[in-house]
Amino acid sequence: MTDAAQMPVVGMAGGGQLARMTQQAAIALGVHLRVLAGGPAESAAQVVTDVRVGDDRGLDDLLAFADGCDVVTFDHEHVPGEHIAAVTATGVPCRPGAPALAHAQDKLVMRDRLTALGAPCPAYAPIPADGAAEAVEAFGAEHGWPVVLKATRGGYDGKGVWVVREPADAADLVGDLVASGVPLMAEAFVPFRRELAALVARSPHGQGAAYPVVETVQEDGICVEVLAPAPDLSGDLRAEAQSLALRIADALDVTGLLAVELFETEGGGLLVNELAMRPHNSGHWTIEGARTSQFEQHLRAVLDLPLGSADLAAPVVVMANVLGGDKAAIYPRYLHVMAHDPAVKVHFYGKDVRPGRKIGHVTALGEDLAEVRARARHAADFLRWGSAMGEHR
Amino acid sequence: MTDAAQMPVVGMAGGGQLARMTQQAAIALGVHLRVLAGGPAESAAQVVTDVRVGDDRGLDDLLAFADGCDVVTFDHEHVPGEHIAAVTATGVPCRPGAPALAHAQDKLVMRDRLTALGAPCPAYAPIPADGAAEAVEAFGAEHGWPVVLKATRGGYDGKGVWVVREPADAADLVGDLVASGVPLMAEAFVPFRRELAALVARSPHGQGAAYPVVETVQEDGICVEVLAPAPDLSGDLRAEAQSLALRIADALDVTGLLAVELFETEGGGLLVNELAMRPHNSGHWTIEGARTSQFEQHLRAVLDLPLGSADLAAPVVVMANVLGGDKAAIYPRYLHVMAHDPAVKVHFYGKDVRPGRKIGHVTALGEDLAEVRARARHAADFLRWGSAMGEHR
Repeated sequence: MTDAAQMPVVGMAGGGQLARMTQQAAIALGVHLRVLAGGPAESAAQVVTDVRVGDDRGLDDLLAFADGCDVVTFDHEHVPGEHIAAVTATGVPCRPGAPALAHAQDKLVMRDRLTALGAPCPAYAPIPADGAAEAVEAFGAEHGWPVVLKATRGGYDGKGVWVVREPADAADLVGDLVASGVPLMAEAFVPFRRELAALVARSPHGQGAAYPVVETVQEDGICVEVLAPAPDLSGDLRAEAQSLALRIADALDVTGLLAVELFETEGGGLLVNELAMRPHNSGHWTIEGARTSQFEQHLRAVLDLPLGSADLAAPVVVMANVLGGDKAAIYPRYLHVMAHDPAVKVHFYGKDVRPGRKIGHVTALGEDLAEVRARARHAADFLRWGSAMGEHR
Repeated sequence: MTDAAQMPVVGMAGGGQLARMTQQAAIALGVHLRVLAGGPAESAAQVVTDVRVGDDRGLDDLLAFADGCDVVTFDHEHVPGEHIAAVTATGVPCRPGAPALAHAQDKLVMRDRLTALGAPCPAYAPIPADGAAEAVEAFGAEHGWPVVLKATRGGYDGKGVWVVREPADAADLVGDLVASGVPLMAEAFVPFRRELAALVARSPHGQGAAYPVVETVQEDGICVEVLAPAPDLSGDLRAEAQSLALRIADALDVTGLLAVELFETEGGGLLVNELAMRPHNSGHWTIEGARTSQFEQHLRAVLDLPLGSADLAAPVVVMANVLGGDKAAIYPRYLHVMAHDPAVKVHFYGKDVRPGRKIGHVTALGEDLAEVRARARHAADFLRWGSAMGEHR
């Protein structure tokens, strides 16, 4: 606690945009946010007064950072579980805890556990380093081609995932990956209609809250748009996705947010794709689009406060990621974007512009999906390119 | 500008809750906010990385603070106009500028100017230090009793305003005030139905944007509730209040926000009570209740960006101020408030609790005024007292 008001200190390991946006929620609640960042120029470090500069995967820096926190949480999945356990052993609770987070850190651990829970998953198999190419070919022979090859640890935003079209492609790729020490697994390729995400929160008390299920639109493995709520989703599938996410959160003892990325298959069923245990790109729309933003919700959950309403604030909400284009000067583009659409909400993360990098997002709200989506797209494209998308694609 | 993105640096003189909430908007836009605060524990200084500690009424500190800013603005009206002019002379624009701000700093200057503009005001007269009591009595004889006596400079939140019931009360009070060097004016007492506020923004380009007119509910001279939009306000009065505020902003060359506090008289007309040229307590509801919060709007206006939509985000929005009670420990009260109403939004300013001091606010949104108002009141009362209001009033 920091003061006479007894406001708690929440430590967040990682200085990216998720910690940055968490600071906006912390300011409202009066909660003291401390961030462990790699340097003072990182996205969150620019806007948080209590920044500790250090290595959030190093034990010493984590222990020093956690000292004085009432709870520690994370803006990514890359803090080693044994370090989280070590922090927990000092008496500072980590939320989510190391056992829960293991399922977001290792895709094979996740698949084994979800399968044991009866959660729907694609067929999968571990790929041993010895005889890896043969194992991939055997998996393809059994489950069909293409085969999806995944690094079990360390992937994000489409990195660490390879689609192997046919047996002849397997040998070289697998050989290179094994030689680089990448731990691998294979998954059946899922022909899907679209991708969905179910975002829930769970507190140490066991309270749960489910946001409306959203559709996520990906390009080149990167999320470019989120449509909330997922258009034309049947009530059955919506309920199934929300209860599945709440059930996983409960079974894995998740504290904080859990994002369950889902495939809606061509057959009309659901399969779990990935898990994330933190504020998630598929939930940025909640800042303006839900009664409680995912960032406030995450703080409430890790602090074991009662969870906030996850209700929609408008019938249709669309979030579009702003990716880096070819110019660094983003601010001059605000003139057009804001003049063109006085109601679109602009979020910039203070990150250097690199082509394809997520540097911000925009959110539009309204009644009509096509209109709201066009507004969000126009703003995101203009912030990226300095003109509308048509000229560039 | 701070960086390759060409994000501007906005300097805000004053480290109170208005600067604190402006930081939330600056984080979203990626705008760099610098604050001149009296000390590192002030409300905004807790959450802004670029804090300059100094005296925001002292010329040297203001000049050092402004150096490197793209624009300077204010979270209160107390920076002397000659210092603002000195900063402007160095080439850093101040918004609002000194000539505009004079009307929010001196009530007599404001009355003279508004009267010249034909804006409806109560009858008023300057009260000279020589023969002050006689002047008050003469004013009362002409305009009736009670007479409202105001300090022309330095008042806020009901301070600097005295209601003189009858001639016999005038002499002692006026004598004390004159002896203390307080510059005085008299105004006719206005029998009013209620108080309203019209909040507008104006940019250097001359673009204007008007928020829905709200009703402000005062107790002991302090705003305790804001109802948005003002219930049962006729379309004519609404339009009159909005166009009056836009007209004043234009005539006074206001840049940034302008809050016009109004009386709705018993006869059903409008009279201007006060002006404020900054984010204003009557606009805190806009954080969740309007498409563009007043804090984002103020940044956009002082940066000469296109203004944001001022549309309501819900049919009914109620903001209730949280005043300090008898205990400092606010955080433990979050448990009840959040469990009781998952959709109420809590804002705490990180200020020490003192009885009657504004330490935060809560906002509720919905469809039905009575229900939404009861929700906001319950939350504000519980945060103040640790129980519902009924037990304390």
